[in-house]
Amino acid sequence: MDEVRWLDSDEQDTWRAYIEGTRLLIQALDRQLETDSGVSFTDYELLVHLSEAPGRRMRMRDLADATFSSRSGVTRAVTRLEAAGWVRRVECDDDRRGMHAELTAAGARKLADTAPGHVAAVRQHMIDQLSAGERAAVRASFGRMRDELRPGLSRTGEPGE
Amino acid sequence: MDEVRWLDSDEQDTWRAYIEGTRLLIQALDRQLETDSGVSFTDYELLVHLSEAPGRRMRMRDLADATFSSRSGVTRAVTRLEAAGWVRRVECDDDRRGMHAELTAAGARKLADTAPGHVAAVRQHMIDQLSAGERAAVRASFGRMRDELRPGLSRTGEPGE
Repeated sequence: MDEVRWLDSDEQDTWRAYIEGTRLLIQALDRQLETDSGVSFTDYELLVHLSEAPGRRMRMRDLADATFSSRSGVTRAVTRLEAAGWVRRVECDDDRRGMHAELTAAGARKLADTAPGHVAAVRQHMIDQLSAGERAAVRASFGRMRDELRPGLSRTGEPGE
Repeated sequence: MDEVRWLDSDEQDTWRAYIEGTRLLIQALDRQLETDSGVSFTDYELLVHLSEAPGRRMRMRDLADATFSSRSGVTRAVTRLEAAGWVRRVECDDDRRGMHAELTAAGARKLADTAPGHVAAVRQHMIDQLSAGERAAVRASFGRMRDELRPGLSRTGEPGE
């Protein structure tokens, strides 16, 4: 590997600003959620995905795909959320291969209570820090990165694959 | 909280592209490092910070600040890296309040062996996906986010605070 294309100074600054800004941002969002609502950022994202799915339920493996998580990670998270009463596991009528996770009424209320503070934090620490042009650049570039990196898996919650 | 400024469609797309792209990117970088070098992304960043510090050593708490990690997180990481022989703990001659972590010669070799593959992955999945204008926008906007979120702590490895 003697032909390494090292990062030049601008590229290095771009990478450092991005990775350090991201680390601080995720910590701030996690802290706001934990402090104000007792929910981790990861758990919050799971609840959001369930709330947006048809019937507020998703197959466990679709939930893992949607959150780009491992199956075991989602299983642990759903166990936590089930203990809190915000999610329940239900068997699929039409599909014996897997379990569904379903948002409970208490989970929907929890999400409704939690969302305003989280959205305010996302605005304060990220969205409102960016100009319209920077938002467009972030949207385009991270959308491209996501599409390039996304595994070839269905991300919809639709039945029948 | 009935005055919530929810994200509009463009802002929502910006946030989603960023958070999903970031999740996939970190996973890809972590996977490359683990597979090719047996090092996590977090551990790699620690080794880089030590390699750039004067004398290749930093006080544990400065290392936590520099990587925006908790003290306990850095302690666990240094324990792992010490077991691998890449880092050693040394007492500060001039400062009884804390321990230093120091990069070993084996750690410096490990970093030199690991860096080319990691930089290639950063290029492939991020830097080379962005136009020059997008890189400038990411550099400016995440630099601003970082500065706004950075705790009021010294990030240098300089002695004497």
